[in-house]
Amino acid sequence: MSFEQMEKLKTKLPEWLETSRLRTGQGDVAAYIPELAKASRDTLGIHIADSQGQTVSAGDCGVPFTMQSISKVFTLILALMDHGEEAVFYNVGKEPTGDDFNSMIKLELVEPGIPFNPLINAGAITVSSLIAGDSPEEKSARILHFFRKLASNERLDYNMDVYHSELETGDLNRSLAYFLKQNGVLKDPVEDVLSVYFRHCSIEVDCSDLSRMALVLAFDGVDPHSGEMLIPRRYIQIAKTFMVTCGMYNASGEFAIDVGLPAKSGVSGGIMALVPGQYGIGVVGPSLNNKGNSIAGVHLLERLSKEFDWSLF
Amino acid sequence: MSFEQMEKLKTKLPEWLETSRLRTGQGDVAAYIPELAKASRDTLGIHIADSQGQTVSAGDCGVPFTMQSISKVFTLILALMDHGEEAVFYNVGKEPTGDDFNSMIKLELVEPGIPFNPLINAGAITVSSLIAGDSPEEKSARILHFFRKLASNERLDYNMDVYHSELETGDLNRSLAYFLKQNGVLKDPVEDVLSVYFRHCSIEVDCSDLSRMALVLAFDGVDPHSGEMLIPRRYIQIAKTFMVTCGMYNASGEFAIDVGLPAKSGVSGGIMALVPGQYGIGVVGPSLNNKGNSIAGVHLLERLSKEFDWSLF
Amino acid sequence: MSFEQMEKLKTKLPEWLETSRLRTGQGDVAAYIPELAKASRDTLGIHIADSQGQTVSAGDCGVPFTMQSISKVFTLILALMDHGEEAVFYNVGKEPTGDDFNSMIKLELVEPGIPFNPLINAGAITVSSLIAGDSPEEKSARILHFFRKLASNERLDYNMDVYHSELETGDLNRSLAYFLKQNGVLKDPVEDVLSVYFRHCSIEVDCSDLSRMALVLAFDGVDPHSGEMLIPRRYIQIAKTFMVTCGMYNASGEFAIDVGLPAKSGVSGGIMALVPGQYGIGVVGPSLNNKGNSIAGVHLLERLSKEFDWSLF
Amino acid sequence: MSFEQMEKLKTKLPEWLETSRLRTGQGDVAAYIPELAKASRDTLGIHIADSQGQTVSAGDCGVPFTMQSISKVFTLILALMDHGEEAVFYNVGKEPTGDDFNSMIKLELVEPGIPFNPLINAGAITVSSLIAGDSPEEKSARILHFFRKLASNERLDYNMDVYHSELETGDLNRSLAYFLKQNGVLKDPVEDVLSVYFRHCSIEVDCSDLSRMALVLAFDGVDPHSGEMLIPRRYIQIAKTFMVTCGMYNASGEFAIDVGLPAKSGVSGGIMALVPGQYGIGVVGPSLNNKGNSIAGVHLLERLSKEFDWSLF
Repeated sequence: MSFEQMEKLKTKLPEWLETSRLRTGQGDVAAYIPELAKASRDTLGIHIADSQGQTVSAGDCGVPFTMQSISKVFTLILALMDHGEEAVFYNVGKEPTGDDFNSMIKLELVEPGIPFNPLINAGAITVSSLIAGDSPEEKSARILHFFRKLASNERLDYNMDVYHSELETGDLNRSLAYFLKQNGVLKDPVEDVLSVYFRHCSIEVDCSDLSRMALVLAFDGVDPHSGEMLIPRRYIQIAKTFMVTCGMYNASGEFAIDVGLPAKSGVSGGIMALVPGQYGIGVVGPSLNNKGNSIAGVHLLERLSKEFDWSLF
Repeated sequence: MSFEQMEKLKTKLPEWLETSRLRTGQGDVAAYIPELAKASRDTLGIHIADSQGQTVSAGDCGVPFTMQSISKVFTLILALMDHGEEAVFYNVGKEPTGDDFNSMIKLELVEPGIPFNPLINAGAITVSSLIAGDSPEEKSARILHFFRKLASNERLDYNMDVYHSELETGDLNRSLAYFLKQNGVLKDPVEDVLSVYFRHCSIEVDCSDLSRMALVLAFDGVDPHSGEMLIPRRYIQIAKTFMVTCGMYNASGEFAIDVGLPAKSGVSGGIMALVPGQYGIGVVGPSLNNKGNSIAGVHLLERLSKEFDWSLF
Repeated sequence: MSFEQMEKLKTKLPEWLETSRLRTGQGDVAAYIPELAKASRDTLGIHIADSQGQTVSAGDCGVPFTMQSISKVFTLILALMDHGEEAVFYNVGKEPTGDDFNSMIKLELVEPGIPFNPLINAGAITVSSLIAGDSPEEKSARILHFFRKLASNERLDYNMDVYHSELETGDLNRSLAYFLKQNGVLKDPVEDVLSVYFRHCSIEVDCSDLSRMALVLAFDGVDPHSGEMLIPRRYIQIAKTFMVTCGMYNASGEFAIDVGLPAKSGVSGGIMALVPGQYGIGVVGPSLNNKGNSIAGVHLLERLSKEFDWSLF
Repeated sequence: MSFEQMEKLKTKLPEWLETSRLRTGQGDVAAYIPELAKASRDTLGIHIADSQGQTVSAGDCGVPFTMQSISKVFTLILALMDHGEEAVFYNVGKEPTGDDFNSMIKLELVEPGIPFNPLINAGAITVSSLIAGDSPEEKSARILHFFRKLASNERLDYNMDVYHSELETGDLNRSLAYFLKQNGVLKDPVEDVLSVYFRHCSIEVDCSDLSRMALVLAFDGVDPHSGEMLIPRRYIQIAKTFMVTCGMYNASGEFAIDVGLPAKSGVSGGIMALVPGQYGIGVVGPSLNNKGNSIAGVHLLERLSKEFDWSLF
């Protein structure tokens, strides 16, 4: 982190955050899972970490939230580490789709019926089924272990209320999963796969955790604090590419143009973003726009990207 | 039945059936349920019943087969008798659709997400959930009782091998059902609904049973042999209309033009048809065309309709 | 026409019509063509003709209106008379579709890209291209001649204001037509085909004309007044079947259940219906429901069908 | 260009190109325009330009070909320069779509009916309509002038045979355009818009021209040879982002993962790619894979990206 950027961030971030917070009223907290509906619409927090251990944060950065779709980036990486590129992409495609994240249309209409990419629900459910392990419990344990390592936080854990809430209300994901089962994409029993999927969606973090996980991606798989290589660089490259082309649901194209950073959002209002070779960023803002992304979080990231010319493009 | 038609039928039916049987090689037995795949491709049988108790039959008319989609006509009628028109059509539409019988596209794309009609799978699953009864067992018992009454055959029963085969391989129907559950169309647990649905699809009949059930439809709900009123005429009218507009999957339009009789087919190769005020007809021919209808059965019905000018139109 | 029905009709029709007219406020006049938007929302008229030349009418039965989609029934018949069944159904299918009448979805998604049936716009445009004639003018002249004959009205003619209005605003039909051209379904230049299509949609009639045209269909192709055979019976059968399965846009299934008569509607608010072997019926009511059918006209036909038990089913 | 890369390129490029050329047999030359079908399937050429005027080339790099979809990148930029971001993105979206480049599905199903992005046909036709100018001729002249400037080649011109071939066979684009016209997206007459569109698709270049145009993009809008600022940097950013998310039809996601460079392909077999701050690249290889991209060209670019670690990700 350059000294100037750091100084400017420290000075300006709280003010920028408050400007973005004015947007929260234009969106809504996700209501489809009762537990998520409890989040406060006005919450907005951000945490930025660099390679030397410096951090800047502002707003409600200590508020805990579940990873939801953000976890899909790391289960994809773990599946790649378990089985390699060829095996993973035999079961899931690489293309963005302009449809809603939970749509079945492309599964039904396009041969051979595999999900378009690993970041839509159908794709992420498929990826969950590919995690190595003899049982759903073992797969889940391996995922949690991996996430703890990436966040350098051994206390990372599931929010069991959210997990049970998702299990009970997840009929659309069940419908997707049985469709995949019918197509031969899922090998394991559907409920086993969904228990792994819902579990990793329910891992609870705060902005600081997200920023640390993003930092490993920003430094090509090496934890810059410990120097440890946690992820092969090729899989980082794959993950970052998907974050750019499909990371923000069907607003990914717009985000790429306006912000230009690899990022992944979740319906809890979290966004993980990264500035390659520089920063890991965690954001929380549960008020969502109509595409399912944090309305104030996107606004704040756009401000930061423009101020510091962070776009990859 | 006019004397002349009856005499001509007795003389000619075996010959016409053998001509139609030559078509069986152009189709295939349904393979998606292992139990159905055991049927013989060359089988073709027909049984015609009239109001005075006269019958004509030809070919393999004693071969048992499961009703599959043919049962949807009678569960619709039973649901109408249980709840009335308004309640049933609050949950399922009245329109034909040119899509495959197991498609989700229209459910996803068209508001308000109820199935297009009661004869596609999504609609029939919804109808199964509407049968009165405190448990899946009670619902199933009421259905079986109703079917036995209509067929005047107390020995009508489930083929449990087919039932279990469907339960094990029915993931596409599970996917549809969870989609309906998500949309609020299904109130009961999905597996409960599916157990009722798969069970009535697995009721085993022969051509004679089908012709007797069709005869009740042909005589506006009255069993012409006993004189008993089994179904209110309005529900017969509804059922016959759906049979014409959607009874033969997405070849219903073609069948209406070429045959012009109310009919319903199943993937077991059965077809139930009726000539209003005259005959009930049961056909079996497991070799299916690419729309899922008995290839030789459709051919034979077209011959009969043209010979005797039976089309409604 | 039975003496009792006729007497009851003469007595009751004006009252029933006024009851139905109360529905006009729930719909809207078609606005997509400026000329159609000039129609009065409260208009409702009906004219019923029988084989002996008796007629009953009520309401605004003298109001002129253009045939619009109603004309599709007769161009289909003319194309069948010009080329036979096989040639026509090589270019257009026989299946109802639950999509909007102007949708392209099925054209794009389902092989081989021919229109689903001759009563949706894509199908009717295709049929227009099949009318025999060396030029658009000759084709149009043959159509007008045929329509005049069927209506026994030599003064039947185009409403040129509506025709020009359609030509100028018909970009969606142009889009459909170029799609068909690309697929090889249309052989002639698109604008030539559209000029024929828009022209026959613009033929102006009143309820009396429609009832006379319907009467020929009701009597299997023979004009019961002159005894002249105008249409082969097989083509009547085909036309009536399509009227039942697809005649009322994507409310055809509902209409078949509630009314049960062969009918065809147009966006001008006209409906042509028939009671086989008995009556030809013409209705006009420009206030349309959300499916594009005359809201009061459908209501009135349902009343008539129930009073006299006219349903085919 | 680093001395080492340049030396390695000069030594290795011919060999790598010949290895990629072995792939040409697995694809096919575009057949939908007769003029394009004349290209030789075995052709493969590449030209790489750097900021100091150094170039490396190999294979059939002098073969002329039409820009086709590659031109869409520069008409987008010109429309942005003419009207600004807000006006352009009022008429065209920013999202990738997994559908075929000439699909209408999303136009019909997703409100408000504007094209998903400026690089699919519907979007590019819309962009063509936004180019400033009082007539199609003036718009076309401005486009040609702009392209000549970017390529530093005053002799750049239309291939009129290809232009006329496209005009004659472009019914699918006509269909798209009339659909856009109906939706109010196109203001000008359809044939006027298409004449501009087909014209810029027919501009003829060779690999050297493409590499020069790409070089301006690689240097943020400044021609590094003349130092002249030709395009505002913001529009370069937008163009590069679209090239990454949608530049290679519905194989863009795969290309982003495997190559990771902003690129745009055309059905003539051309690919324009760039390495930001370093190189402009032009490729020609008319043998296309099933997604419409040069099969050998993609292979060669993947090799180069991996050898020199050029991926943005």
